[in-house]
Order: sequence, then structure tokens, then C-alpha cells
Amino acid sequence: MPFNPIRLSPALAVAVLLLLPSPARADQGMWTFNNFPSAKVGQAYGFSPDQKWLDHVRLSSIRLARGCSASLVSKDGLVMNNHHCAHSCIEQLSTKDRDYVQTGFYAKEAKDEVKCPDMEANQLVQISDVTERVKAATAGKDGKAFSDALKAVEADIAKECTGGDNKTLRCDVVDLYHGGVYNLYKYRRYQDLRLVFAPEFAIAFFGGDPDNFEFPRYDLDVSFVRIYDNDKPLDSSANYLPFAKDDAKDGDLTFVSGHPGNTDRLDTVAEVEFARDVRIPATLLYLAELRGVLEQFSEQGPEQRRIADTRLFGTQNSYKAYKGQFEALVGPDLVKARRDDEAMLKAKVQADPQMKAEYGAAWDNIKAAVDHTKLIRDRYNMLETGRGFDSELFRDARALVRYAEESAKPDNQRLREYTDANFPAVKQGLLSTAPIYPEFEKTTLRFSLTLVQRLLGPDDATVKTILGSKSPADLAADLVDKTTLKDPAIRKKLLDDGPAAILASKDPMILFAKLVDADARAVRKDFEENVDAPLSKNSGLLAQARFKLYGTSVDPDATFTLRLSYGTVKGYDQKGGHVAPFTTMVGAFDRATGATPFKLPDSWLAAKASIDPAQKFDFCTTNDIIGGNSGSPVINKEAEVVGLIFDGNIQSLGGDFGYDGTVNRAVAVNSGALREALAKIYHADRVVTELGR
Amino acid sequence: MPFNPIRLSPALAVAVLLLLPSPARADQGMWTFNNFPSAKVGQAYGFSPDQKWLDHVRLSSIRLARGCSASLVSKDGLVMNNHHCAHSCIEQLSTKDRDYVQTGFYAKEAKDEVKCPDMEANQLVQISDVTERVKAATAGKDGKAFSDALKAVEADIAKECTGGDNKTLRCDVVDLYHGGVYNLYKYRRYQDLRLVFAPEFAIAFFGGDPDNFEFPRYDLDVSFVRIYDNDKPLDSSANYLPFAKDDAKDGDLTFVSGHPGNTDRLDTVAEVEFARDVRIPATLLYLAELRGVLEQFSEQGPEQRRIADTRLFGTQNSYKAYKGQFEALVGPDLVKARRDDEAMLKAKVQADPQMKAEYGAAWDNIKAAVDHTKLIRDRYNMLETGRGFDSELFRDARALVRYAEESAKPDNQRLREYTDANFPAVKQGLLSTAPIYPEFEKTTLRFSLTLVQRLLGPDDATVKTILGSKSPADLAADLVDKTTLKDPAIRKKLLDDGPAAILASKDPMILFAKLVDADARAVRKDFEENVDAPLSKNSGLLAQARFKLYGTSVDPDATFTLRLSYGTVKGYDQKGGHVAPFTTMVGAFDRATGATPFKLPDSWLAAKASIDPAQKFDFCTTNDIIGGNSGSPVINKEAEVVGLIFDGNIQSLGGDFGYDGTVNRAVAVNSGALREALAKIYHADRVVTELGR
Repeated sequence: MPFNPIRLSPALAVAVLLLLPSPARADQGMWTFNNFPSAKVGQAYGFSPDQKWLDHVRLSSIRLARGCSASLVSKDGLVMNNHHCAHSCIEQLSTKDRDYVQTGFYAKEAKDEVKCPDMEANQLVQISDVTERVKAATAGKDGKAFSDALKAVEADIAKECTGGDNKTLRCDVVDLYHGGVYNLYKYRRYQDLRLVFAPEFAIAFFGGDPDNFEFPRYDLDVSFVRIYDNDKPLDSSANYLPFAKDDAKDGDLTFVSGHPGNTDRLDTVAEVEFARDVRIPATLLYLAELRGVLEQFSEQGPEQRRIADTRLFGTQNSYKAYKGQFEALVGPDLVKARRDDEAMLKAKVQADPQMKAEYGAAWDNIKAAVDHTKLIRDRYNMLETGRGFDSELFRDARALVRYAEESAKPDNQRLREYTDANFPAVKQGLLSTAPIYPEFEKTTLRFSLTLVQRLLGPDDATVKTILGSKSPADLAADLVDKTTLKDPAIRKKLLDDGPAAILASKDPMILFAKLVDADARAVRKDFEENVDAPLSKNSGLLAQARFKLYGTSVDPDATFTLRLSYGTVKGYDQKGGHVAPFTTMVGAFDRATGATPFKLPDSWLAAKASIDPAQKFDFCTTNDIIGGNSGSPVINKEAEVVGLIFDGNIQSLGGDFGYDGTVNRAVAVNSGALREALAKIYHADRVVTELGR
Repeated sequence: MPFNPIRLSPALAVAVLLLLPSPARADQGMWTFNNFPSAKVGQAYGFSPDQKWLDHVRLSSIRLARGCSASLVSKDGLVMNNHHCAHSCIEQLSTKDRDYVQTGFYAKEAKDEVKCPDMEANQLVQISDVTERVKAATAGKDGKAFSDALKAVEADIAKECTGGDNKTLRCDVVDLYHGGVYNLYKYRRYQDLRLVFAPEFAIAFFGGDPDNFEFPRYDLDVSFVRIYDNDKPLDSSANYLPFAKDDAKDGDLTFVSGHPGNTDRLDTVAEVEFARDVRIPATLLYLAELRGVLEQFSEQGPEQRRIADTRLFGTQNSYKAYKGQFEALVGPDLVKARRDDEAMLKAKVQADPQMKAEYGAAWDNIKAAVDHTKLIRDRYNMLETGRGFDSELFRDARALVRYAEESAKPDNQRLREYTDANFPAVKQGLLSTAPIYPEFEKTTLRFSLTLVQRLLGPDDATVKTILGSKSPADLAADLVDKTTLKDPAIRKKLLDDGPAAILASKDPMILFAKLVDADARAVRKDFEENVDAPLSKNSGLLAQARFKLYGTSVDPDATFTLRLSYGTVKGYDQKGGHVAPFTTMVGAFDRATGATPFKLPDSWLAAKASIDPAQKFDFCTTNDIIGGNSGSPVINKEAEVVGLIFDGNIQSLGGDFGYDGTVNRAVAVNSGALREALAKIYHADRVVTELGR
């Protein structure tokens, strides 16, 4: 499960309306909290969540800003999430001499809880509809005008919503049913999260890459952090999800509340073929090569391994996820079904003169935008998305430079991430005290500059400007060695001194960020105006056509906003056999070989005798989830935690393009196993006590 | 241009008959020397090569056994080939203190010429037809019986051909027009090749990976070696290709004599879709990750860079080549054209009851073989082709173990590479004195064992047997550290002591090779019987159907055997502009930035004033070539060398599946530039003198 729903190519970051002409398949759906099909669930399972239940679950759900889900599980702000979602924090708090990734972490007393350098939690406190206002602002506009108007109205709405309080509030205009509905999501923002508990990486990711996206599984992929508010544990007594007393059973109804990152379930054929033939293969090749670099860097020594771990883990994870998508796309059914659906819709639109006039050109316009993407995507990925300048120091330098330039503009004319509403997240990154490792920076920057040279070609003017007479390795070494931005105090001072000081800085990484910024902004502009805007506009038209023809009772494509899915605990058939829905804790011992990634931590080996061997460990359900759902609570009808989502099976990866209830499975740690491990292996009594009602 | 035509997945190593229903496009064709369309060339260009001309060119052509082409260019056994084809030798002769890859090499006197540790040259002395004998031996057989019978009759024919003299003769039964024609190719075998001249890598591969498969180009990708026979320079006065006095001009007729490795121009739709959806993506992902590993290994220091150089170069090259193929396959035309061709052929076959009975099932049978490939290809690639045990030491250990086992069998029942006819090449590898670098061995073996674990899965019985409780890195380190096979004397002694001694050896790498051999042989057997045999048999049936329907005047798919192509010096249009067919030497100076790979060697900078700036440097022609053609001479009507093939443009990479004369171009060094550089930059007067008549 991608713990960061990495959108390497934003070309398909276009969520189009999920309105299947045929009835949605059983259990399919990542539902918004203001449009949950309670009646339908009631008919199927005899339980209909009411508004109070929904509000309670919503307010108990947490979004981790860097790409995960989580939940409040005690009255004192305790947040349950995945180990892999807190991995970055655990690694940042580690040093050469105390490696919490390896040893795990437990704050025996409240005072031992340690702040995660750059973790941010958001709690969705309100959803309101702003469709009419957004539509009025963009009506009749195209290309740059459409893009500018949309950005401006979104920034205005967000600003009004926070009332200038960007410290404790975050407001996002969310585009649902692409072009169909615009909702304003208002979040309470928390930036003081402290690590409470994390097990050893060896059990959090037992089975490693080989077992990732597979089931049966034996992982304790959990960590607990606590939200602090004004330096005190958050009072969450009004809304939290207590642990269920009993384990879930085969067939039980389960809900998953979390933040699926992205789906593309109703893209046009042109977009799906582009994903299959260009976007996903290119992304996979990028990830494969990066993986090779990171693997070999890790082989250079244990310290290098520790430094590269999080990145390597994320890269392997994304690789496997995209590979699952690719395999679904080249399979016999998916593109064919999409082609049939599209032909049917097109025929209906063409048959009605008014619909034809309104929507008939949308497919060609989308195709044209996809074709334009092909021309500029390498340049866009390299210069703007950061794939070409892969370095924390560069990201800091660019953030400083752009902050300096953007802050001089009216709020609603800035690049999105520099609006008053969004800048706090960028600022948190800039002020992060997480350590920076120069050798690793040189490695990733060298690699990415090599890609710039390779993909844009040595004759490209930007490449000539960037490299001059230097090799990628020499340039990377030079920039990393000479920049002073490695020191967070210097970054803070620049930010405090303000735009003029930043723009006057002679720091070589800042100068480099300035050097490439005009070209990067130019291709971003091209992308926003000639790809994003027409895709957005024309996908919206198709969404409206579908609305008219097929009705409204469906869920929108995922957008990394809060969704609720329902399903049941259920096994599945694969490779000629049946996979049971539960594993047991003794299974982990049976599977252990003693070699990484099948090596159990010493704490487990020592506690083996005291653990109930039959305790259910991990389980799978039919809930419709995708990357971004990592860390989501699995809850029962009583809104009690019965599990913790940490993965989907390999079949579920095709879920980006379509859900198949016969084999798509969400994978979770069982709440009983969490309690058993916390009590008997880690003696984390303080945490166990908190997990009750 | 792949200097080793790496066939990572042999599933498509099935050459099917190239019999286009439409007339072959102008200049298309990699013709055998016993079926050259002289009349057609005469009609188009006013010159028809006669038998004497063809025989002379054939006997002047050289195949380098590891995957390149070359030619005799003097009466004293001087062989012109690419720098990238001799790169491995140049690297093997280098040490930490004298790096000929970087400095270049020139033997000022005959006595300074140094033996390449494992280079083998083959000269095609005779072609004869053995179709009837092979067909009689395999008639009515299927699966294992077909496979065994084919292997046996080929081994018998080859053995009779060499008469037991495997030292100076090599005989191969070549399957042309798959299942259509079997020819016996008899070669004079030379294993004593000595390095005479090589320029610096910096100019041999100027522009590096960014410029690879591109044009315009500025490369002096040449090396000269000399064949020795009985410790004396070979007397080649009867057949060699002298350098032309004048450079070729735009529009000139050119011939290329060389060894194209493989084409798949008439694969069925099932095979092409398999290539597009499975084989090529998987190969690319493998190469991308390996590339990342090798790049990072190279970054660890200059010595590591030197050690990994050849492998990295080859990997980048293959990557770009497969990427070109992938892009051609996902383009709008190729698969569609193939589908149309197949539908037409199928309709004709179905319409004729007798043809239907004979050939009608072939498509389904091929589809079934392709489906079977999908099931076993990872296992086959990992365990048998060597992708899973990527180590020279492992290759030596396996060769020893298999030699020991196979030599006990009758010649015609052995694995192909251990027949008396083929074993000399394996033996040369075993006795090679090329240095082995333990850290590099550990790196590639670690990486490949990781792939075995990943692709076969941790629950696979073979994986459990191989790894036990070790990680891939630990196992690789253990094997490489403890094996004694690093010493060529020990390998020689084992070979001299014979099978019993080998099989009794306690060397850990030999024990490891034995440990995996049963499973490797099992999947090879499965592949040969259930993939290779049905593909071979059914592709042969389709070939016959095409013969009956469309006629015979076409060239067979490439098979890494000697072919002659014709074409003209000609530019082409790309990206809205026209690419002229020639570059000049001053262009290299203009393009140089001073940073690798755009850094000219000091020798060039020093000699700049003395070089004719307008001297034509590289050029491109319409000749139909592909990987394996590297090092081929480009000759004029007088059979004089006017150029040296070293690459094809990016468009030519789709040539694996189909030739497009509007943009496919062969790329060569101009003979005049070779002479200019040898004389004025390298002062290699001894070589310049030899290149005349």
C-alpha cells in the first residue's frame, strides 16, 4: 500500500466521475461522508449508519498530510497509524547510535514522547458545498483563463474559510466527480505529533518486499503517536474509536474510514491507453532504476542502509503497486471493458443533438490533451515535479525561492502550494530538524540530474544551462558540499529575514534553484493550461453527460480526502486454492527463516511462550481501498476498532482502474493481535490501558 | 547497437519466415549470401554483385563469437571492428595502473600486439543445405521427441562437418525461414586475436548514452585486432577488404556485410502482444534496475567505475535498444498491421480445406506456447539463462559441472553448448585469464539472487533450497569469498583432471552450481519441450503456408549469421527538420563540453590544428541492420571499405519488428575519418599503411 500515494506523473491526476452504466458491484465504493449509501448497506447487511454515527467516525478519523490515514483511539489524543506511515519520523529521530527503526520505540512515560520533526495531522471538521461559486467563476473559460480562474476562486474560498488562521485550520476546495461537485473541506490542523510507540521494523514489515501486497501476512505494521495541542495531549474525549473487546469474525461487516489517494476508474480510453503505454511503463522504469541505485547505496554499509531505508522501502512499494496496475492494464479485460463503455456513452451522446453539441467534442479534446502530455511530460517531470532534482536541499532551496517570489503576489494568484492556506505545510518542511545526509543527497541528486540529461537530451538548452561543463555527479557533489542549507537554523534565518534576503542569497543551492526556476515554471504553466485545464474541463463535461444518462448514486474517484468503504471479512481464491481471511500469531514463527526480511525481532523470540499462538494476527476484507488508505481503522457497527489497514493484496492494485470484489482485498492487522503484542511482547501497558473505552 | 545481442528471454528466439504479402519495401532485407537478390539490386542501382564478388566479401567478413561483426582489412590478418566490440578485451588487458580503456592502445611494433583473453573470430568458409536431412529426422514428431530429434540431428551434422577438429573448425546448423530451410554453416575458427589499436573510450563513445542510437554522431568507434594462426599473423591476402581511396558521397550505393542478431518480423499477433505486454517490459525493468545498481557501484570510485564500465555500457545499450522496440510496439501502426496481415493469412488458410488441415491449428498452438511461456519464464530466466546467478564465477562453476555431466553422454544427446562442436567456446571462457573482481562479483550475484527471491517468491522450494537462512547479500559474499575458482589455474586443473575431479570438488561455488542444477535443467527441459519445440514447429507451419501463398523472394529473419544488406547514403527527416547524412570532424570539437561523455581526449585537443575540419566523420545509410551488425564493414561496389557500422538510429530499433526505409538508418564511421585519425591524431602509421590495397 503506497504510504505516500506518489503521483509521479500528474497527467492522470484527473478524477473523473464514477458513474457506471451497470450497477456498481457489491461492496464497491469509496464514499464521501456526505453521500454515504446507508440505505443500501442496510439492505445488504442489516445495519444503516446514521448521521450521528457518520459524524462520529469522521471526527475520529485523521489524515496525515504526507499521504496516510490514521485515527484517534483514546480520549487523550492517541493516534493509531501504520509503522510505515511514521517510518520517516522514526528514522529522523534515530541516529547512528540509537536506531529506533531497528529497535523499536516506546515512551514509558508521557515525558518520553518525542516530537516528530515534520508530521502533520488533519481532522475533517466540516464539509460544505461550493459548487455554484466555483462554476460561476470558471463559466465560459478555457485554457489559461480557466486555470487561473479556478485557482483564484479556490484560493479565495480557502482563505475565507480559515479566516487567516492557517496555524490551526486548513481548508481545501475538493473537486469531486470531476467538474461535477466542488466541496470545501475544513480541517483542524495539528503539527505537534509525538511518537509514543513503534515496534521493530523487522515485524512491522515482516516478509519485506517479497510479501508486500500479498496475503496471507504476518505484520504488526503499527505505530502510535499523540497529538499535542498547546503542549498538552489533545482532549479527544468527544470523538475517538475505542478498541473492540472481541476480534472480528469471518463474514463480519466492516467499515474502513480513510483517505484513498487516487483512482482513475472512468478515464477515457485515450487516458487509459496512455497510462498503459506511456505513463506507467515510464514510471516503472524510473522506479526500477532508482531502486537499483538505492539498493546498491544500502549495500555500502549499515549506516548507508539505515539512511536509505525509508526511501528504498517507498520505492519498492511504489514499484510493486505500479506493476500491479500495469498487469491489470495489459490483461485481457480492462481496456476492452473501457472501450465498450466509452462506445456506448458516445453513441448515446451522438444520438441526442443537444448532448452532442454540449459534450460531443470532449473525447477529442481529452485525446488532444493526452497527446500534448506526451510532448511535455518528461520535461514537466524532470524540471517541475522534482524527479530531476531529487534532493531535500534542492526542495528547501526551491521552496525558499518560490516563497520569496510568490509571497509578493496577491494570495489568489500564487502557485497553489504558496497560498496562505497551504504554505504552513511547506514551511514545516523548511523548518524540519530531520537530519540531512550529504552522501545520500549527492546520490539521489546525481541520479536525478543524469535523468534530466538523458530524458531532455544533451542539446536541450535547459540541460546546457544546468550542467555547463560539469557531469551530473560533479554538479551534485558541488552543490551539496557548498550549500549551507543543511543547517535548519540557516533555513529558519532566511525565512525570518524574508524574501529580499532569500533572493539576495549567494548560497549555491539557492542560486541553482533560481537558475532552473524560469524553465520549471514555464513547463508547469504549459502543463496546467494545456493538460490539466482541458482534462479538467472535458472530464467534467463527460461527467455531466453520465449524470444525465445514468443517474447519481455512485461514489467519486478517490482524491486523498476522507472516504468510508464498507465490506466484510472474507477470504478469496487464488492460484487454484482458497486463502483464508485470518492468519495467526504462531504463523509468523513458522514463516521465520532467520534472514531478513523473514527474521523476527528478539523481542518476539523471547516472548514466544507467553503469546497465544492461535491469536488472530492479520486479516483481509472486501473493503474497497487504495494507496493513501494506509493506517485507516477497520471498525465494526459499534464504531469500535477491529483492525488497522496496512496493505491491499496484489489483485487490489488494479483497483486504480476498477474494483473486482471476487479478489480485491484490503489487508489489516487484527486489533486483538495489536493488544496481545503491546501487552505481552512490548509491555506497553500505558498504551494498552488507553485503548479501552 | 547492442554489441552483444542479448536475448534475455529466449521465448521469442524464434525466427519466422519473412514473407510479406506486399512487396518488400525498398532496401529492406538482411540477405543470406546464397540467396542475394543481385538482379533486383542491379535494376535499382545499376550494379549486380556476381558470385565472385559475393564469395570474396563473405570470406573477408568475420563474426566475433561474443556477438559482433568485423572484417579483414589487410593481407596480414588485420581485423577492423568496433571499439565497443573489443571493449571487454581492452578492459581485461587493463589494470589499475594502466587503463587502456581510458588511454587507448597502440602496438607500435608487431611484438607489442597483445592477446585478447577470450575473443574468438569465425570466418564463414562454406554454406550447404541440410534441410532434407533435418526434416526427415524430425518428421511427425512433437514436443520432447521433436526437440530431442532436432538437437540430435544438428549435433550429428555439425560433428561430421568438423570431423572432430573443433579447434580450427566450427559448424552450426542454421535454422532459416523457421522450419523452412536448414543450412550448415562451416566456419574457420580463430582463438588467437591480438589487440593492435584502440582509441580512447572518450572518442570511441563520444556522447555516451545520451547520443547512443542517435544521429548526427561524432564517434570513432573502432579497434583493430590481428588474427594469429600458429603464432604468426594470418595470411589473408586472398580475401580482405581494402580501404577505399575516396569517401562515400550522398546517394552512393553501400553494402553492409555482417551478423544481425535477431529479428521478429513475422511473429504472430500472440507473440507480438506477448513481447509488448510481458517480455519487453519485464526485460526493460530488469535492465533499469541493474543499470541503477551498476551506476551506483561505479560512483563508489574510479576503480569501481573501470571495473563496471563494460557491463554498464552494455546494460545502457540494451536498455535503449529495448526501449526503442517497446516504443515501436505501443505505437499506433505496428500491432495493427500485424493483426491485419494475420487476419488475411488466416482467412486464406481457412478457405482451403487442405491448408486448413495442415496449418489451421498453428495459431492456437503458438498461443498455447506463449501462454506456457508466461507461466515459466521467470523461473527459466532466473535459474537457467543466468539472470538469477549473475557471476562469472558461477558461470565457470556451472560450465565445469555441466561439462562433467554432459561429457559422459553421447555427443548428440548433450545440452547444445556441451557438444564437441560447441564446447571450445565454453572452454575458452573457463580458461580465460581475464581478471575477476570479487566486489563486483558479489554485487551482481547479490542483485541477481534478490531477483530470484523476488520473482519466484519466498515460498518457492528452489528459493528455500538456495537461500536457506541467508540473505542474498550474505550468500553472495560467502560464495565469492570462499570459492577458489577465481584462479584460472585452478579452473584449468579441474578441467584437466576431468569429470570425476570436478564432481568431487568441495569448492563452494561448484557445490552451489550442483545444488541448483536439477531445478535449472528441469525448467530448461520444460522450456525446450513446451515453448521452443511447439513454437519452432508451428512457426514452421505458418512459414510453409506463407511460402505456398506468397512466394519465395524474401530474406529470412536474422539469426546472428552472415547477411548482406544494400542501401544508400541518405539523410532523413525527424522532428520537423532534415538530418544530413554526414557529420564532420570539426563538429566533434563544436559539440565537446569538457564533461564526460562530451569530453574529447587530450590527443584530439592536441592534434586539432592538424586535422582537416571538413573531413567527413560519421554517416548514415538506409542499410537494413540490427544488433549484432556492430563492426560490420560498409563497402562500395568495388568491395572497398567506406565505413564501419557502429550503431543504428533510434528509429531503426523498431526494425526488430519491421523495417521503415523513410527513417531507419544504419550509422557508420567514415573510412576517411578513420584514416585521418589514425594518421594525424594517433600516428599509427603501421596501421595506416596496412589499410591500402
